[in-house]
Amino acid sequence: MEKREKLYEGKAKIIYTTDSDNLVIQYFKDDTTAFDGAKKEVLEDKGVINCSISTIIFEYLEKHGIKTHFVERLSPREMLVKKCEIIPVEVVVRNVAAGSFSRRYGVKEGTPLKEPLVEYFYKNDELHDPMVCPNHVYMFGWATREELGFMTKTALEVSELLKKFFDEIDIQLVDFKLEFGRHNGEILLADEITPDACRLWDKSSGEVLDKDRFRKDMGKVVESYKEVYRRIVERYEKVEE
Amino acid sequence: MEKREKLYEGKAKIIYTTDSDNLVIQYFKDDTTAFDGAKKEVLEDKGVINCSISTIIFEYLEKHGIKTHFVERLSPREMLVKKCEIIPVEVVVRNVAAGSFSRRYGVKEGTPLKEPLVEYFYKNDELHDPMVCPNHVYMFGWATREELGFMTKTALEVSELLKKFFDEIDIQLVDFKLEFGRHNGEILLADEITPDACRLWDKSSGEVLDKDRFRKDMGKVVESYKEVYRRIVERYEKVEE
Ligand SMILES: Nc1ncnc2c1ncn2[C@@H]1O[C@H](COP(=O)(O)OP(=O)(O)O)[C@@H](O)[C@H]1O
Ligand SMILES: Nc1ncnc2c1ncn2[C@@H]1O[C@H](COP(=O)(O)OP(=O)(O)O)[C@@H](O)[C@H]1O
Ligand SMILES: [Mg+2]
Ligand SMILES: [Mg+2]
Repeated sequence: MEKREKLYEGKAKIIYTTDSDNLVIQYFKDDTTAFDGAKKEVLEDKGVINCSISTIIFEYLEKHGIKTHFVERLSPREMLVKKCEIIPVEVVVRNVAAGSFSRRYGVKEGTPLKEPLVEYFYKNDELHDPMVCPNHVYMFGWATREELGFMTKTALEVSELLKKFFDEIDIQLVDFKLEFGRHNGEILLADEITPDACRLWDKSSGEVLDKDRFRKDMGKVVESYKEVYRRIVERYEKVEE
Repeated sequence: MEKREKLYEGKAKIIYTTDSDNLVIQYFKDDTTAFDGAKKEVLEDKGVINCSISTIIFEYLEKHGIKTHFVERLSPREMLVKKCEIIPVEVVVRNVAAGSFSRRYGVKEGTPLKEPLVEYFYKNDELHDPMVCPNHVYMFGWATREELGFMTKTALEVSELLKKFFDEIDIQLVDFKLEFGRHNGEILLADEITPDACRLWDKSSGEVLDKDRFRKDMGKVVESYKEVYRRIVERYEKVEE
């Protein structure tokens, strides 16, 4: 697979074209941002760890019937993925109250939710990713009822799968964000699944193992991501071999 | 109907019990607030005008098959209504971009929407009425799927009816907010329908005839409400007689 030119550089990743029209390379940078890019730092090795974690999770989800953009890992920071037309709706699934949800609705952080809650946000840094409802998605024409229905159903399936995945390594999956894209008439799970886009709490100690460490200046950001990766490898890579 | 004691005093109205368990009196104050009560003024006559406008609109909606809490007008500022358990979800219908919608999604004020858009907000001043989606409403248990479905359907019917109602008096209905309540196993349209809870623009001049005059310190607030009332009476009360 030949890497050609930069198609898009985002806050945490770069997308490169390849010699196939159907495929792009997703390159994971060490850049780490929060608050829609207002806070920014380079955290050594983060890109490698996130590429590793994302690879294992996409393989796990594919094995359990979820259609993702993942094709194969090419190098420590590079992943070959199916080229998608990204739907500008971030789908968030929450199992426990935290972050903006807690602030918005006055629910104490750590309160378990009665049922997994799906929220939608318009992917737009300038507008600070405002919350939307399905009605907005249809009216603005970002996705059809059928597409959003599929995304919601898939997000809930992913939620169940990831809850189990992390539960096995003594991590509580608090919430996570997904992005979907259109590829050859199908909707695929795209982007990344990493501690940048999930809230992960150690089940025993409650320790935060995700990007909140960066947002809240708690330190040991990459160390925590590495700990998540270490547990994943110990539990999942060993069994496979 | 005997007025008994104050049941609840809100920002713009007071609810009194009566000698019937099923009925309460809704008293319209001159108090006018914005930004969840942060800005506050007493605007002489506003309560009377709003009671008048609400009365005519509830009668009009009832005539067209919408079930409301309205029973009868008792005095210039008082309306007898069916006592409801208010559902803490404000239902907003937008036909044209304005206000918080324009800010949230970067859509220029005055842009017509492709289709009427229904939005939901959690009625909670302390939290500043945060936006919610149907999923939040179900998860928090504020209303069932069936109840919210009925509220949404009714809100869209009310939108069509009010668009016609205001169109006839050369006013563009930009958006409006509804509250619903449970009464004897039914969902009724409750609260008020007035320039405090609608955006109303003169069709010819674009002049603002609603509470935005107060929010934005444009002056002539009650004068504008009176102009809306004058047109309503001229068009609707005369025909009826
Ligand atoms: N399979 C794919 N095809 C095309 N674009 C993708 C794919 N997967 C993810 N993307 C997009 O590539 C970008 C990834 O880089 P990122 O740094 O996360 O960007 P951003 O700052 O926009 O979130 C995102 O805009 C994401 O939506
Ligand atoms: N039919 C009804 N039965 C009981 N309560 C009602 C009814 N109609 C409206 N209400 C409630 O009465 C209050 C009206 O007063 P208002 O000044 O608008 O209060 P608020 O400041 O809470 O919006 C609101 O809380 C409204 O939800
Ligand atoms: Mg991103
Ligand atoms: Mg009110």
